[in-house]
Amino acid sequence: MSDPVKINRGLKGVYFERSGVSDIDGAAGELSYRGYSIHDLATQSTFEEVCYLLIFGELPTADQLSAFDARLKAARTLPDGIHDIIRACQHGHPMDVLRTAVSALAALEPQSQEVSEEAFIDNGIRLTSQVPMIIAAHEAIRNGRNPVPADPTLSHAANWLWMLKGERPSDEAARLADVDFILHAEHGSNASSFAARVTIGTEANLHGAIVTALSTLAGPAHGGAAEDVMKMVAEIGTPENAAAYVKAKRAAREAVTGFGHRVYRKEDPRARHMRDGVRQLGEEMGAPEWYEILQAVVEAMKPYARHGLNVNVDFYSGVIYQLHGIPMDLYVPIFAIGRMPGWVIQCVEQLRGNILIRPLTLYNGPDPRAYVPVEQR
Amino acid sequence: MSDPVKINRGLKGVYFERSGVSDIDGAAGELSYRGYSIHDLATQSTFEEVCYLLIFGELPTADQLSAFDARLKAARTLPDGIHDIIRACQHGHPMDVLRTAVSALAALEPQSQEVSEEAFIDNGIRLTSQVPMIIAAHEAIRNGRNPVPADPTLSHAANWLWMLKGERPSDEAARLADVDFILHAEHGSNASSFAARVTIGTEANLHGAIVTALSTLAGPAHGGAAEDVMKMVAEIGTPENAAAYVKAKRAAREAVTGFGHRVYRKEDPRARHMRDGVRQLGEEMGAPEWYEILQAVVEAMKPYARHGLNVNVDFYSGVIYQLHGIPMDLYVPIFAIGRMPGWVIQCVEQLRGNILIRPLTLYNGPDPRAYVPVEQR
Repeated sequence: MSDPVKINRGLKGVYFERSGVSDIDGAAGELSYRGYSIHDLATQSTFEEVCYLLIFGELPTADQLSAFDARLKAARTLPDGIHDIIRACQHGHPMDVLRTAVSALAALEPQSQEVSEEAFIDNGIRLTSQVPMIIAAHEAIRNGRNPVPADPTLSHAANWLWMLKGERPSDEAARLADVDFILHAEHGSNASSFAARVTIGTEANLHGAIVTALSTLAGPAHGGAAEDVMKMVAEIGTPENAAAYVKAKRAAREAVTGFGHRVYRKEDPRARHMRDGVRQLGEEMGAPEWYEILQAVVEAMKPYARHGLNVNVDFYSGVIYQLHGIPMDLYVPIFAIGRMPGWVIQCVEQLRGNILIRPLTLYNGPDPRAYVPVEQR
Repeated sequence: MSDPVKINRGLKGVYFERSGVSDIDGAAGELSYRGYSIHDLATQSTFEEVCYLLIFGELPTADQLSAFDARLKAARTLPDGIHDIIRACQHGHPMDVLRTAVSALAALEPQSQEVSEEAFIDNGIRLTSQVPMIIAAHEAIRNGRNPVPADPTLSHAANWLWMLKGERPSDEAARLADVDFILHAEHGSNASSFAARVTIGTEANLHGAIVTALSTLAGPAHGGAAEDVMKMVAEIGTPENAAAYVKAKRAAREAVTGFGHRVYRKEDPRARHMRDGVRQLGEEMGAPEWYEILQAVVEAMKPYARHGLNVNVDFYSGVIYQLHGIPMDLYVPIFAIGRMPGWVIQCVEQLRGNILIRPLTLYNGPDPRAYVPVEQR
């Protein structure tokens, strides 16, 4: 009674579990997967290798990597019925269509019902290959084209761009998509991974948890930042307008999108790799102005810089997608392609020594009162 | 450093928010919605009235109730395409099919994209009417029948049984379904409601949150208990076998299903209403043995009774569904029909003064290590 209950709003600062997958040092602005710096992985690794690392805990040998790659490629199939389902809701937002199709996979593939570590890994690898197929198939169907079949000679990233556009991507474009996926692959107890763990806590299956993760990622405060930044860049138009834009936003006490993160107090370590990508791609494509607008925004934000007001990973990624001619409503689905291995391994971790995740709310409603029949109200 | 981080596994005992919807006194075994005891509501109210109470905070006047009822009835429609989607995945588990269809509604109904308190209530009322339609349509389709159109002259519960079976339910059967829905309508920060709040925390829309809730409810440690109890009853077979069954389970240190709850330390207050229903319905239908088996299990459990080993709400509900001839794989979907208003209002509460729900995991993986190229591994 005299001891007031502590309310941990947003569960900020509350630890609910241990995890050996990724380590975020928000104060130092550092991120590592299984002990490997995100900078090394972004510059030297591949998405396939990072998937293996996240799921199995160690970098693969050449043989392990080749077997794992074969497993991912073999999983590039969708059961009959998925294209019909996509077609039936093709005019919806791609995240809603993706989530619907992943949910339907649980109904169409009996092995999705199994709840074990082995099944989660098996189903997780299959879903990692299927998610980009669904997104690309939807993009084709809503534009009146037939879905492009997967190409088993291409990497995960290159195959994604191939299925999306129906033409072979340049090595540079494929590598940029690969780096994007690596950077988005895992990020501790973010809202979508946490929500997926809550679903697994009830002993639900992996498909259910991935559906939960997709629902949660779709929110603009989680996966939607890249799209918002691109809209901001379009609104600013030229680098000269950036300072006035930022000044007006700050005067109105509105947030400038793409800045700040719950965890990082320095620049998001993933941002620099996307920044380099934007600059290079813009120069190659003769469209350097997007990069210049973004840098002008960063400059204009400097007077307001304080703890937590650095750019985050999605500050740059939207412009990369834009330069690739990818529709804005696919930015969040692309995030999902990258995050698949992180979701999968966190669900596996949750399943080990599983426990129901059920916090409490403090009741602040009416005191007990007597029921009165409707005719007496 | 010297101060060890506290890990709150399962977030047990952690308060993350205030809520004015329901109050659970686990020690006393009491539950109230908006200040009204569950016992009064189960015996005197209706599901429609409880929906209104949960969503708007007060019991409705006769006029308010009639307007609200009209709103629920007007929402008994499904957009074109939903039946096609159900058909495409009809052989899946009904929870997977229900979740897929609700997810597809987000893609098919543009108003589902709006994020505001008003939109959540509007979309929530629509979904409350649509969820039983989807379940009944799936049951019809997978049995080669045409879905039964909703009947606007029937209550929510009676219309559900009508759509499910294609015949008018008795008043008693409709009332029992009504009570079942009332008892399942809301229950604090249970895992599915909490997961839905995590989804809303990212500013996602209500449909996304309901999809998350459905994924989470599907887990056997949350919504699956009624089905497990029914399987246990079938396994026990006759009341005489109950003692030996319980003894063997306890000797093997296995849990007896339907007993215990994270929150309640006395009997789940919802259980008694379902118990009365099982007894009455069994007598009416000339099948009293199910009730007798359940009571024999309760007797046999008494020597093991201690904190948290009382029957929970789902101990009795499965048998009611069984007596109604409802397939076992519909038990969890029926739970979802009842829980709809609770999910909706908790999402509305979360949206007010919304905050990202993002706890932390403590890293226990490998120390920082240098990347080694694959050819050197």
